[in-house]
Amino acid sequence: MDYDRRSALALIGGGLAAGLVGPSLIACASESETKRAPRAPDSGERVVHEPLPYVRLDPVHVGDLAYRNTFRGGCMYAVFGTIVDALAEQVGEPFTSYPTTVTRYGGGGVAGWGTLCGTLNGAAMAIYLVSRDPGPAINEVFAFYEQEALPNYVPAEARFQVPGSVAGSTLCHVSISRWCDASGFDASSPELGDRCAQLAASVAKYTVDVLNAQLDGSFTAARQPTAAALPCLGCHARGSAVESTFGKMDCGTCHTDKLENHPKG
Amino acid sequence: MDYDRRSALALIGGGLAAGLVGPSLIACASESETKRAPRAPDSGERVVHEPLPYVRLDPVHVGDLAYRNTFRGGCMYAVFGTIVDALAEQVGEPFTSYPTTVTRYGGGGVAGWGTLCGTLNGAAMAIYLVSRDPGPAINEVFAFYEQEALPNYVPAEARFQVPGSVAGSTLCHVSISRWCDASGFDASSPELGDRCAQLAASVAKYTVDVLNAQLDGSFTAARQPTAAALPCLGCHARGSAVESTFGKMDCGTCHTDKLENHPKG
Repeated sequence: MDYDRRSALALIGGGLAAGLVGPSLIACASESETKRAPRAPDSGERVVHEPLPYVRLDPVHVGDLAYRNTFRGGCMYAVFGTIVDALAEQVGEPFTSYPTTVTRYGGGGVAGWGTLCGTLNGAAMAIYLVSRDPGPAINEVFAFYEQEALPNYVPAEARFQVPGSVAGSTLCHVSISRWCDASGFDASSPELGDRCAQLAASVAKYTVDVLNAQLDGSFTAARQPTAAALPCLGCHARGSAVESTFGKMDCGTCHTDKLENHPKG
Repeated sequence: MDYDRRSALALIGGGLAAGLVGPSLIACASESETKRAPRAPDSGERVVHEPLPYVRLDPVHVGDLAYRNTFRGGCMYAVFGTIVDALAEQVGEPFTSYPTTVTRYGGGGVAGWGTLCGTLNGAAMAIYLVSRDPGPAINEVFAFYEQEALPNYVPAEARFQVPGSVAGSTLCHVSISRWCDASGFDASSPELGDRCAQLAASVAKYTVDVLNAQLDGSFTAARQPTAAALPCLGCHARGSAVESTFGKMDCGTCHTDKLENHPKG
């Protein structure tokens, strides 16, 4: 694999694919996750991953706070802001003053567009902030969201009993549509609002489970993206014959016409 | 509309849907986008939007920096980090020390999952950080990404001449797949890596155009989500007859089987 190809792979993967970036690129890093030494933006130095120190959190406590914080600032804030808040309770700075409210932008799959579920956007950001090995932890939480019937945790203050549903996707639009279908509630019902808050609680709780396991050294990747078990990526993923696409989302969620009547290769 | 319903709508929309949140909820806010007064996480106070002060930026300068920063920290960092860097060049604090490197998590549609394009995740976060009216600005940039042949700006240091393609989506997976199809390049080609850096440049540049227009008072919503012109939302969006879904993504990108052979209502 030549330099350009490795560089492109690392670039598009956001540098999370460990081992794809040569040591010479790592060595010249200068920025950490929090304080930035003033520098010229065009310095050309590669950003390195220097997470903040994580301490063990109580998943149930975080889940309950995330439920409440959903009503304060939306679903992305509920997960990211709550984990930062909980760390601030334990250790103070740098978490006490770490900015969190900007993550309100992610509500409703970013400003109501229904793209990436805000709970996952917040979980990924929180994991990246504090994990030394964020890629596998993000994978685990995303696959959990895709495959489990959620919400699977009922916070102490929950206002409604709501059913769980399997999203089969990491996208807000699909997740809400399938929950409306499974539950019979409509898309502006108060039950859906409470379901999203309970979902934030469930995702925040599971994210803390994963981060605690990484801290303990007991983390293993228990889940794989659904797409990993499908034949699609054997031909279409990077490094394969057709090599025409990119990603880990479940192919069958959208490509319903390709699973049974796939064009002959 | 009762309180619960309004609350649910505002919640799922991340509070961006102006006017949906009653004044009593706004009045008790306490947090700004940056410095947080230490507080109990369970205070119950609603987070309010207090953007940092934006100053006019040079879109071409930002575009060129975003291209370079893609190679430093991935696509989300390239847009968010570059706009913060450019503001730091102009005004110093609070932008100089504002944390940006955490946004590396968004690379490749978050850790390579191919969900929301990192350039848009970064643009939405940057807009929310500095815009007094972030919803319409985010809409504008997302619709631009969905509908324009991108990249549409060639940075001064671009390494490859690459064609543009219309994503028809805000998702990394779809955007890359369609570009590979349009260009003939494969998904681990150095040309794709450069296309993503030029895309970051194009999105950062357009985001600054929108923010500058908001600053000048000349901003008008020139684009609508493609979905707004489809008949789908007339039955399925919130407030309609079926009311079974949520979002602004182009319905036809995934629901290819529904456009011509829709089940009878």
